Amino acid sequence: MARVVVDVMPKPEILDPQGKAVQGALPRLGFQGVSEVRQGKRFELELEGEATEERMAQVHEMAATLLSNPVIEDYDVRVVQ
Amino acid sequence: MARVVVDVMPKPEILDPQGKAVQGALPRLGFQGVSEVRQGKRFELELEGEATEERMAQVHEMAATLLSNPVIEDYDVRVVQ
Repeated sequence: MARVVVDVMPKPEILDPQGKAVQGALPRLGFQGVSEVRQGKRFELELEGEATEERMAQVHEMAATLLSNPVIEDYDVRVVQ
Repeated sequence: MARVVVDVMPKPEILDPQGKAVQGALPRLGFQGVSEVRQGKRFELELEGEATEERMAQVHEMAATLLSNPVIEDYDVRVVQ
């Protein structure tokens, strides 16, 4: 069994209203000195069997088609323990 | 300037309807062999100055109060390059 993490973040050039909302709330809650916040998604997948090259190619396809919107988001795939 | 990542995931014992929806969609889209999907949030913070012990304690407090709901979510904080 393999465990894979897919991180999906808004592309740097894309406005991120969720992140901006968090950033705006921080000073009101007494937290200073945070110059930027970006909010994205994290997926943890459990694969049946090993993380073979073929399975990982499938995970990349999932990440690019189902888990992220490639117009506005970047994704990163990695195997974890 | 320090860059900090905060990962927020639903606790293992908590139902995760978003993850279940993704998992349900995978076979319909032709992806087999994924036995579990959990969906959470990923925050990337940029701090002014260094990630001192005091600043990181503040980030942990942010993570526990603003970025996550500790009743249903776990969080993980780490400094990245």
